Amino acid sequence: MKRVAILGPGLLGGSIALALRGSPGVEVGMWARRAEAVEEARKLSVADLVSERLEVVVQDADTVVLCMPVGAMAGVVSKILPFLKPDALVTDVGSVKQPVTQALAPVLQGRALFVGSHPMAGSEKAGLIHARADLFRGATCIVTPEPNETASVAVSRATEFWESLGSRVRLLSPARHDEVCALISHVPHLAAAALVNTVAQQLPSAFDFFGPGFRDTTRVAGGLPQMWTEILSENRGEVLKGLRALISQLEVAAGALENLSTVGEKQSQGCSLSYQKLSAFLSAAKDCRDTLRVG
Amino acid sequence: MKRVAILGPGLLGGSIALALRGSPGVEVGMWARRAEAVEEARKLSVADLVSERLEVVVQDADTVVLCMPVGAMAGVVSKILPFLKPDALVTDVGSVKQPVTQALAPVLQGRALFVGSHPMAGSEKAGLIHARADLFRGATCIVTPEPNETASVAVSRATEFWESLGSRVRLLSPARHDEVCALISHVPHLAAAALVNTVAQQLPSAFDFFGPGFRDTTRVAGGLPQMWTEILSENRGEVLKGLRALISQLEVAAGALENLSTVGEKQSQGCSLSYQKLSAFLSAAKDCRDTLRVG
Repeated sequence: MKRVAILGPGLLGGSIALALRGSPGVEVGMWARRAEAVEEARKLSVADLVSERLEVVVQDADTVVLCMPVGAMAGVVSKILPFLKPDALVTDVGSVKQPVTQALAPVLQGRALFVGSHPMAGSEKAGLIHARADLFRGATCIVTPEPNETASVAVSRATEFWESLGSRVRLLSPARHDEVCALISHVPHLAAAALVNTVAQQLPSAFDFFGPGFRDTTRVAGGLPQMWTEILSENRGEVLKGLRALISQLEVAAGALENLSTVGEKQSQGCSLSYQKLSAFLSAAKDCRDTLRVG
Repeated sequence: MKRVAILGPGLLGGSIALALRGSPGVEVGMWARRAEAVEEARKLSVADLVSERLEVVVQDADTVVLCMPVGAMAGVVSKILPFLKPDALVTDVGSVKQPVTQALAPVLQGRALFVGSHPMAGSEKAGLIHARADLFRGATCIVTPEPNETASVAVSRATEFWESLGSRVRLLSPARHDEVCALISHVPHLAAAALVNTVAQQLPSAFDFFGPGFRDTTRVAGGLPQMWTEILSENRGEVLKGLRALISQLEVAAGALENLSTVGEKQSQGCSLSYQKLSAFLSAAKDCRDTLRVG
């Protein structure tokens, strides 16, 4: 019998539990901090065992998955240290990997196997109530070994775990992971929120006229502010770098539009250098986006 | 028999023709500039009459719809002036309304009825080949009379025309229309293109890891650069104003992240003013977006 301990009963923890439910030879334990959360998890029968006592859930576990906010992980790990089996695999589902790895890897060194994970699944809907057994099916999970540090057996066991939930696993160092996610997720999130705030500030009545373009461009702005503030703040170095690059790109477009205004109508638009610059800006984006394999 | 003349065989012109095809008592004529476009429109039987001669299509028309790029409209209108019935309604489908109205209203004054229209339908797929009879069904069409200038009969006839295609009509002045569209469409388009260009510039390999969030946030960047350069450039005053406001919003977020970095780890994040500022930024956007009726 293999035992999996899921610490934290949110969307991700709940979905892992549901995905494992009924797997032959697997027993799932779930820990929740609040008594009401324990009640809810029991009512929904998401795991074989649900408890608010960490030691009950963690002892004898072969795999421990940290599914709480990134900032709470170090505190929980210090509490479970005495109960961990020495060959247990500890991993997590945090969206930012450098701070997590820096906080947990030294503490777990010699006490258990550790490697970080980031299952790229989830949604703007949070909480156990939205958990789904198929949340990870077909999703990419990034596993983040530290070069020359992380034991290869930790990587292979984490890979096996996520593949058993139907995910495709890819490896990145924690630092590269955070750089990638800043660019494809954290900065776009800020851009979506900034677009909504811009309309609200400039002309709220314009919201009455939005169409599918605005709807899609700003969809992620509906995400949980509490969770996203933590993610952005934990990854602030990379997010800032990406945000500065985005602002520079917008300044390129603004510069071209400003020149078009001052050059005025005299020059034919087709010949104007600024017109060509704006067109090149849009063409580069289109060419690049057209190559993405979109679902 | 009512006659509708559609000038320009693109996605919008073609879709209007298909929507009207077979309507009892309506005869549809289509003009295309290029011989190959005339051939294609005839092959697809989109209209009762297809010609590259403007006078053939426009004479006897009760409604004339300009479906070419905004920059080409004035030239076409000057050519059709001699053939217009004095009670013909002339309208257009351009995405920017102040330049169109300023260029066309004075010329058509006393020669025909004119009011601008902006059917908010379309897609990143252009051309007659993507035209659909139901493109306008359920869509909003903004009709843009000039206050104290446009004849009310022009407004009522344009309204009736778009409603006959299944659209909901709303009225805005040309100036207000351009302000609204800058905020909900033109600036978001630039933001989407800038996000793609940022990733391409900073770390192209990050594209390999994009998920549904990035896909949706950047979808509109796949739009036709030629068309969008014209739209942005025609509406450059309002787009610049909105773009500056967007950059200010992004600077607010960047400022908060910068403070978090310099304040450092000593202060608890929960208490930090910058943390609260970032959280308020995201909460404002979420609260606002959650109120939008999204399809």
